[in-house]
Amino acid sequence: MDHIKKYVEENKDRFLDELFGLLRIPSISSIADHKPDMQKCAEYWRDQILSAGADKAEVFPTDGHPVVYGEKIIDPKAPTVLVYAHYDVMPVDPIELWNTKPFEPVVKDGKIWARGADDDKGQGFMHAKAFELMLKTNTLPCNVKFMIEGEEEVGSPNLGKWLEQNKEMLKSDVILVSDTSLLGKDEPSITTGLRGLSYVEVEVTGPNKDLHSGLFGGAVANPINILNKLIASLHDENNHITIPGFYDDVMEVSAEERGEMGKAPFSEDNYKKALDIDEVWGEKGFTTLERVGIRPTLDVNGIWGGYIGEGAKTVLPSKAYAKISMRLVPNQDHNKIAELFKKHFEAIAPPYVKVKVSYLHGGQGYVSPTDSPAYKAASKAMEDTFGKKPIPYRSGGSIPIISTFEEILGTKSILIGFGLESDAIHSPNENYPLEQFYKGIETIPLFYKYFSEMAK
Amino acid sequence: MDHIKKYVEENKDRFLDELFGLLRIPSISSIADHKPDMQKCAEYWRDQILSAGADKAEVFPTDGHPVVYGEKIIDPKAPTVLVYAHYDVMPVDPIELWNTKPFEPVVKDGKIWARGADDDKGQGFMHAKAFELMLKTNTLPCNVKFMIEGEEEVGSPNLGKWLEQNKEMLKSDVILVSDTSLLGKDEPSITTGLRGLSYVEVEVTGPNKDLHSGLFGGAVANPINILNKLIASLHDENNHITIPGFYDDVMEVSAEERGEMGKAPFSEDNYKKALDIDEVWGEKGFTTLERVGIRPTLDVNGIWGGYIGEGAKTVLPSKAYAKISMRLVPNQDHNKIAELFKKHFEAIAPPYVKVKVSYLHGGQGYVSPTDSPAYKAASKAMEDTFGKKPIPYRSGGSIPIISTFEEILGTKSILIGFGLESDAIHSPNENYPLEQFYKGIETIPLFYKYFSEMAK
Repeated sequence: MDHIKKYVEENKDRFLDELFGLLRIPSISSIADHKPDMQKCAEYWRDQILSAGADKAEVFPTDGHPVVYGEKIIDPKAPTVLVYAHYDVMPVDPIELWNTKPFEPVVKDGKIWARGADDDKGQGFMHAKAFELMLKTNTLPCNVKFMIEGEEEVGSPNLGKWLEQNKEMLKSDVILVSDTSLLGKDEPSITTGLRGLSYVEVEVTGPNKDLHSGLFGGAVANPINILNKLIASLHDENNHITIPGFYDDVMEVSAEERGEMGKAPFSEDNYKKALDIDEVWGEKGFTTLERVGIRPTLDVNGIWGGYIGEGAKTVLPSKAYAKISMRLVPNQDHNKIAELFKKHFEAIAPPYVKVKVSYLHGGQGYVSPTDSPAYKAASKAMEDTFGKKPIPYRSGGSIPIISTFEEILGTKSILIGFGLESDAIHSPNENYPLEQFYKGIETIPLFYKYFSEMAK
Repeated sequence: MDHIKKYVEENKDRFLDELFGLLRIPSISSIADHKPDMQKCAEYWRDQILSAGADKAEVFPTDGHPVVYGEKIIDPKAPTVLVYAHYDVMPVDPIELWNTKPFEPVVKDGKIWARGADDDKGQGFMHAKAFELMLKTNTLPCNVKFMIEGEEEVGSPNLGKWLEQNKEMLKSDVILVSDTSLLGKDEPSITTGLRGLSYVEVEVTGPNKDLHSGLFGGAVANPINILNKLIASLHDENNHITIPGFYDDVMEVSAEERGEMGKAPFSEDNYKKALDIDEVWGEKGFTTLERVGIRPTLDVNGIWGGYIGEGAKTVLPSKAYAKISMRLVPNQDHNKIAELFKKHFEAIAPPYVKVKVSYLHGGQGYVSPTDSPAYKAASKAMEDTFGKKPIPYRSGGSIPIISTFEEILGTKSILIGFGLESDAIHSPNENYPLEQFYKGIETIPLFYKYFSEMAK
């Protein structure tokens, strides 16, 4: 496929410039102040799709941040690929740990450094450029539709309604997504499973105002102490989650499938070394890859209360808070799990405090088949560019919208991501290797080629 | 004592103006940026002591914030009273809960509203004005020395050294302090016991960087989850503290003394209503007043880790932190307790995390006798102004320096505070009723009068 390599080689600097334009827009979906940036970012994507050669592209308003839609119909009888990506990014706290400014992208050590460099501006943008490549080289074999949303990092609260309203327009044979990682730079892999997510915030209130811990300490329940007790009780001594009914709907994975998973290349020593930890942690009876791949979890993502400034303050605070998320496996319903959490948390709250549980967002887990034309096409495309057949694997991450696509549009997704574990997505110093960016742009046209052949 | 009431009546507006000048200086000792304010505040105090009529007053530098010293020697054979107060104040977070600006004092509903209005600018300043009153009315019967420090709220780290260096200058018969509260507005009381304090900060480190909770959650220990488990384990099911050796040196209080304490006016129903709680909390086997008066405690004063901004972020953080203070009873050594805490916390830390314990500050507890001339003089003075004999009681708060005074200077303190529980010290909307301020100024000269008679 010489035309692919040639086009990428001739245009690689411009591709990067255009990606940088996207990365410079601080499109943090969870922070209200960034609303104007969301619109700007959507318009940037629209213009990119248009200039690549789409028939049309437009910014659709929603009750939240807008969705960009664009399409190129080459032949009503050709197979149709619907590309999904998101232009929103995570917050950048703790900002002081960044080595560069999160919204001033730079290339250093062969990597792009910026918030969104991988997740999902860098990965999403590969599709815009691969689309351009196929059009400019007259090799596009499928109809293409783009659907780029701005609320993925907050659980896509408005996309479902938009999907319902635009079902006909969005008809396709497969949804193509690059928002996942490879098992390793030279370990091509395709994500066949995703975990669901239930994300709650809890508030524990003790006395009605902050108190002096000397005058009241020991006689009035301290909401931080109590919150710690409550959270601590959510895992038992085997690190099983103690919420009644939590595991009821978990689809147990067969011994055979677990055996297959065990063959994935993985070094626990390297894993521990990379994270600088002495021991891994997790649910008794499962391996590290199983713990993130096939088991549900509960993590505190944030906690705060009382005095957190410099020095000492002897306060017995009125309130303490935590953000808690549960990763779910296929068949666990995120709304049901949120309900179970709320019921349990309220039930175990002692009488000296009041608790409030708010559901922030969630999504269902997902499993995709490995015998579909899309999987086979993706596998063949990656084999071409990596020189190695990719491994199907279940990721611990969540892209809640993937299961919604199937529910509303009735269409399966194929997840071919080119990210690496070291990309630090959601963290300070997010990055994306140039090699992965260009490899993605080269792999995608091959997917279209093989998919058009197999889907006939 | 008509001359007292008359002088206060004629000068009350000026007294308030001068106090407001002090309250306007944001002398937060724990925040480095306020260093210039500390110097300014010390100079303000010095000028007040001088203008009241002291022989001399000066600002002594220390390795931390300065100490103000001033004196009036009327007769080397007369008894000498050493007044102690502090000009530093607590931080003002959470600032959004204040109804007025913390460093712009106002009078509303008969109260002064400002950070430090009670603790300890308002209470300390009563002594400056009572001193002025006695001098201007030619009724000062004792020598007076002032020692006003700027590091009380951070545990007086430099005062001990200064006391050592100035032992001779500081010689006195009693140390007079107003930095405590009354049991109620019409319940005069004298604090005869204070709790000690050991204040630590803990840091729990899991992985070496923030991780994506989907990709790593369930397989890598979350430092917030672990911190919660560790803190939760510090109290058992009876709310006893589980640190080995923690109670070893606790001086048990006799059944008789506990019986006496039980006679103090106290309504648990009103207490709960005032704090808006359904149940009190605390160590099994003790009453609410005992829990704050004669028992040691452990409270989390602050906790933080992970994402604490708006919305949701699925991070598995690298670190989690807590500020933890233990209130101690007489005979417990704060350094020993800090050591026990550190040893225990390190011992219970599981192998998947690293913990670090830092000792922020502390001080010993204190008990004062009720048969001393100073106690009797204070009791008589309060009986005059309140029309009721005060009750001796043990407070849950800590003024670590009080036990240091006894150690280094060999002098006992008498704690006559005029604060009320509703003054919200250390909290948003700190206030001090005008009535308490003026009542304090009227009571203090009576203390000098009776003390000069009894100490002869």
